[in-house]
Amino acid sequence: MLKMTSSNPTLSERQAPNMYAPLQNDTFIRACMRQATTHTPVWLMRQAGRYLPEYRDTRAKAGSFMGLATNTDYATEVTLQPLERYKLDAAILFSDILTIPDAMGLGLSFALGEGPKFAHKVRDEAAVSKLAVPDMAKLRYVFDAVSSIRKALHGRVPLIGFSGSPWTLACYMVEGAGSDDYRLVKTMMYQRPDLMHKMLAINADSVAAYLNAQIDAGAQAVMIFDSWGGVLADAAFHEFSLVYTARVLAQLKRSHDGVVIPRLVFTKGGGLWLEAMGQLDCEVLGLDWTVNLGKARAQVGHKMALQGNLDPNVLFANPAQVEAEAVKVLDSFGKPHTDAQTTGPTHIFNLGHGISQFTPPENVAVLVDAVHAHSRKMRAAAA
Amino acid sequence: MLKMTSSNPTLSERQAPNMYAPLQNDTFIRACMRQATTHTPVWLMRQAGRYLPEYRDTRAKAGSFMGLATNTDYATEVTLQPLERYKLDAAILFSDILTIPDAMGLGLSFALGEGPKFAHKVRDEAAVSKLAVPDMAKLRYVFDAVSSIRKALHGRVPLIGFSGSPWTLACYMVEGAGSDDYRLVKTMMYQRPDLMHKMLAINADSVAAYLNAQIDAGAQAVMIFDSWGGVLADAAFHEFSLVYTARVLAQLKRSHDGVVIPRLVFTKGGGLWLEAMGQLDCEVLGLDWTVNLGKARAQVGHKMALQGNLDPNVLFANPAQVEAEAVKVLDSFGKPHTDAQTTGPTHIFNLGHGISQFTPPENVAVLVDAVHAHSRKMRAAAA
Repeated sequence: MLKMTSSNPTLSERQAPNMYAPLQNDTFIRACMRQATTHTPVWLMRQAGRYLPEYRDTRAKAGSFMGLATNTDYATEVTLQPLERYKLDAAILFSDILTIPDAMGLGLSFALGEGPKFAHKVRDEAAVSKLAVPDMAKLRYVFDAVSSIRKALHGRVPLIGFSGSPWTLACYMVEGAGSDDYRLVKTMMYQRPDLMHKMLAINADSVAAYLNAQIDAGAQAVMIFDSWGGVLADAAFHEFSLVYTARVLAQLKRSHDGVVIPRLVFTKGGGLWLEAMGQLDCEVLGLDWTVNLGKARAQVGHKMALQGNLDPNVLFANPAQVEAEAVKVLDSFGKPHTDAQTTGPTHIFNLGHGISQFTPPENVAVLVDAVHAHSRKMRAAAA
Repeated sequence: MLKMTSSNPTLSERQAPNMYAPLQNDTFIRACMRQATTHTPVWLMRQAGRYLPEYRDTRAKAGSFMGLATNTDYATEVTLQPLERYKLDAAILFSDILTIPDAMGLGLSFALGEGPKFAHKVRDEAAVSKLAVPDMAKLRYVFDAVSSIRKALHGRVPLIGFSGSPWTLACYMVEGAGSDDYRLVKTMMYQRPDLMHKMLAINADSVAAYLNAQIDAGAQAVMIFDSWGGVLADAAFHEFSLVYTARVLAQLKRSHDGVVIPRLVFTKGGGLWLEAMGQLDCEVLGLDWTVNLGKARAQVGHKMALQGNLDPNVLFANPAQVEAEAVKVLDSFGKPHTDAQTTGPTHIFNLGHGISQFTPPENVAVLVDAVHAHSRKMRAAAA
């Protein structure tokens, strides 16, 4: 595991002894820190989810999505399910990107087969003026889940914590649900930028406190999902999304118990803004499938690791085609960094978006194995 | 009006005398051809539409969307409605991007308040093998509308014809309707690229024949809407969308009756691929609001005119804010081309997507007037 050179690990370990098992597979963390690895690590957004029959069984027992997310045992169970099937290099907390507005009192729910819905919407000055950074005690179920999962992992792979970005939270808080056109949130943004900035500042400080509490509870990396940054106009993205992602990053802990905590940022549809995103104070940029990894590497690869970016729909093809498309993504990133003495451009394999609920589970095994096998071959060829 | 230097206008005019009134406002056509204009021309995607009460009245009389589109008088009436209200610099045929698959026999319909639906889907080899370029006689209602509108315009502004792109047609033909994830069409694309290529070739040849017939009927410019090109992965966009847009362009008439017919291509979400799109054999690239016009101009502006790209949601702000955002878009494109002796970078103002049905009509007047006023000021300052 990585140690912070600027801290005193012995001292910090004495102050807060690490109660968890040592990390056996640190490939994901090393790749986040742009260190050479023996293969390209792979995990999948929404890897614990509806495409797995065992997930559907647990969800049926829990009764609802929030029933699942708020129950420590169930959240632990489903987080580990994909690791039992596939040789994934990271686990990600089972939760939702919208827990913070729920803790603010907006009333999050998920009807079966539908997206998130909020009982209360934030659409005017009165509603914005009532917003505040929520008491983190209301999110204790998340931190308990993080600790429980971390313990259950026994150091097999690192655990990633996460949150929605300030802008993405604002989208749902104003719209009250998903949207085709983001008309209501953009109306507020264009008509009352003062209100929008006020909401985004509160969201940013909330996300920072939330992710720091996840780190305290045991998250070994944290990721900010800017799922709806890509719906913004060029100038508006910089003013209303990127600035507030940066505000979160500036407040995040850089390490815990003397161990570095990598920070990942994923803006769906953010490919046009890689130059600006390359200036963020984080370790990894997530990319969707519209981006050419080779070009992205040329733009930002020397400063950050890149994560992505297979189209999740590839998993509906035949196994040989899944393998071929995985190889194309690895090859598009290009020659792996193999020098153990230096940092260099590194790639973390992922989908460009969450895995579809209709995915045949057997194709995920094909994908994970193909990434490991081909990325090892690439390193052998590069050596 | 522009004359083709390579043709003999006197001869072609004698063979097919132009039966329409001469064009009084050729600003849009001149900007398409990268010629200097006194102001930046403006028109709006879906400018004849549900946000106008007079449109809703006509649609109520017609009974359905297809009832409206297939009736020459109604189609003419609604096409001209926005020109009565606003000083727009172009008219666009009232029709739908999906008329071709309807003429192929797939059965297009629109339930009130919903998107397009096809009765028959193209999801397997048998269905693809039945596809062929449709008899253009089945689309005569479109060509009749073009001629009727062109006549009714009396040369006020040019008339734009259009079609969906081969890829966008394929999306609807496979999915049968709009989609969140394009799972079915992408499954066919990844699993059976041979079938997808076959369908796209037929679509491309159909679109070319369709647009050429619109040109014959009186369309003075034609636009290809690649509404769903942006959902494709980087490599797939080039292979399954761009190649077939190019195949359409290669077959399009360059002039009619000795007059140049500009060709416009708009890929929603295509900002990452401007370098490749800048190589297309067309006159204008349409851009959505995620693109920075100044950067796009630096990439392709010397070869093509650029069209766009205000976020349609700006029209929900207050008039002063609408005006300010319009000015920002004009300024982001930068210094206008003012030399009457040469061609140079030109901008056609538009939204980055179709206007929302919820738009307050009075804000459209504010927008159009702001574009005209500020773009005239920019020219005065540049001179």
